[in-house]
Amino acid sequence: MADTLELISSNCAFGGWHKRYRHQSVATGTSMTFAIYLPPQAASGKVPVLYWLSGLTCTDENFATKAGAQRVAAELGMALVLPDTSPRGDGIADAEGYDLGQGAGFYVNATQAPWAQHYRMYDYVVDELPALVETHFPVTTQRAISGHSMGGHGALMVALRNPGRYSSASAFAPIVNPSQVPWGQNAFAHYLGDDRSNWLAYDSCQLLAAAETEIPMLIDQGEQDSFMPLQLQPDAFASLAQQRNWPLTLRRQPGYDHSYYFIASFIEDHLRFHSAHW
Amino acid sequence: MADTLELISSNCAFGGWHKRYRHQSVATGTSMTFAIYLPPQAASGKVPVLYWLSGLTCTDENFATKAGAQRVAAELGMALVLPDTSPRGDGIADAEGYDLGQGAGFYVNATQAPWAQHYRMYDYVVDELPALVETHFPVTTQRAISGHSMGGHGALMVALRNPGRYSSASAFAPIVNPSQVPWGQNAFAHYLGDDRSNWLAYDSCQLLAAAETEIPMLIDQGEQDSFMPLQLQPDAFASLAQQRNWPLTLRRQPGYDHSYYFIASFIEDHLRFHSAHW
Repeated sequence: MADTLELISSNCAFGGWHKRYRHQSVATGTSMTFAIYLPPQAASGKVPVLYWLSGLTCTDENFATKAGAQRVAAELGMALVLPDTSPRGDGIADAEGYDLGQGAGFYVNATQAPWAQHYRMYDYVVDELPALVETHFPVTTQRAISGHSMGGHGALMVALRNPGRYSSASAFAPIVNPSQVPWGQNAFAHYLGDDRSNWLAYDSCQLLAAAETEIPMLIDQGEQDSFMPLQLQPDAFASLAQQRNWPLTLRRQPGYDHSYYFIASFIEDHLRFHSAHW
Repeated sequence: MADTLELISSNCAFGGWHKRYRHQSVATGTSMTFAIYLPPQAASGKVPVLYWLSGLTCTDENFATKAGAQRVAAELGMALVLPDTSPRGDGIADAEGYDLGQGAGFYVNATQAPWAQHYRMYDYVVDELPALVETHFPVTTQRAISGHSMGGHGALMVALRNPGRYSSASAFAPIVNPSQVPWGQNAFAHYLGDDRSNWLAYDSCQLLAAAETEIPMLIDQGEQDSFMPLQLQPDAFASLAQQRNWPLTLRRQPGYDHSYYFIASFIEDHLRFHSAHW
C-alpha cells in the first residue's frame, strides 16, 4: 500500500511526540522518510501544520534536533512536518557535489535524465505528503510553510505557486532567485535542462512578479551569512515585494550566519507569525 | 603556552556568541576542545557560569546544538561551558565499546594503565577548565553544574566532592550509583582498578551519604528511559537524600526517554533553578 506508514522512532518532546516515518512514495517512486511533531493539543483535537523544508545536505533530522521549534509548536498547538530534501538510496541518481543529487532536490520535478525518474520533490511536498499527513494524523487543512536556504527557496516558491494552499510562508536565508545564482543554475540545468524558460516556474522572484493572490511572508537573513552575496540575494525579492506592495517583512539580523544557531534564534518568531495567520 | 586558546568557530546565537576552542590541557596532556556560550550580558559585564557535562559518546557539540539552552542562558545572563567527555586523538588509549575510552571518560582521574596517562577528566573539569574560563572570559566565580547520564554522574559527583564550589547542581537521567551498575563498574574497573574502595570517591550515592555541606539539587528522570532500571537508578540517590533531608528535587517525567528531546524539554527549568541559587 502506497499510504502505509512505517514508524521509525517516537520521542516525547515538550509534552507532545516527535515521530519519524518511512513510506513508499508515489511521487518519487522511492522509500521516503519524514518526521512529524504532534503537539500536546493533538491528543484531543486537530491542529494546523507548519511544513518545514530543509537546506542542502539536510535530512528530516537537522531541523528536528537543532531548531528548538517543538517548544513553541507545543505552546501554540501546531504540528510540524519535516520532509527529507530528496529521494535517497543506492539505486537513486546522485552527484559528487553537496549541491546536486541526494540531499539537494531543490523541490522541483526534474525533467532530465537521470534525475526525472525519482527527483519529483515538488509533487511530493505539495501534494503527496500533505495528503498523507491529513489522512493519518489529527491535523486540520490549515497549512503554513517555511524553510532554510534551499528550503527557503522551496517554501516561498511552493507558496507562490499554490495560492490559497498556505495561509503564510516564511524563510531563513532563502535562495530567492535560483535562476540567477550558481546553486540554482547548477541544479536547474541538471534537473530541468538548458532551456532557462523552464526554470522560471521555480524561481520565487519570477513568481512574485506575476503573483495575484497575496500571502503574508516573513524572511530572516543573517548579515554575516557568507552565502548571502553570491547565492541568496534577499534584496532582489524584497525590492519586487516593495514595488508590488506585497506583505513581506524582511529582517536583516546583524552578526548571524547561515547556521542552525541563526534558525534557532528566530524560529519562535516564525512560528508565532504563522500562528497569527491561520 | 598551556593557556593559549585557539578559536575553532564562533556563531551568533540569541544575541550572544557560541564559541568553540582548542587548547593544550595540562590535566590530560592532550589537545582538548570545549565550547562556551556567552550571553548578550557578557558584552557589558561578568556573568555566572553553568558547566554542562555530557553523556557517553558525546562531544561538546551535542548539548550545544540539541538542547536549546542558549535561548534561556541569553535571557538569564548565564554563560554555558561545555567540555568534551574525554581526551581524544590517535595516540590516546581507547576501547572498542561506546562506554569506555574516548567519549567515555566518566570524569575520573584514571590510575590504571593505559588510561592513567591522559584520562584525568576530574582534574580537567574541576580545576583546569574553570581556571581557564575565569581567566579568559567575562565570567564571575559563581558556578553551577549539570549534566546528562554519565555527565549527570559527573555533575552530582563533582558538586558533592567540592562543597562551596558550585551553588547548585542538577542532572538529567544521571548514573547516581556507578559502583553498583554495569556502566560504572566496567569503567571504574578499567580506570581505577579492581579495588572497589577506590571507586567510592566517584560514586554520588556514597558521597551523598557522607556529605556535610548542603547544595541544592534538581534531577529529572524520564519514566520511559530504557537505561533507568539497570544503569541509572535515581531512586537510590533520592532515598538517601530523603533520609538526610537533603535539598533534592527528583522529578519523574512520564513518557520521556534518554534522548536530547528529553533534555530540551526541561533544560529551561534547570537553568532557572541554577539562576535562582547564584
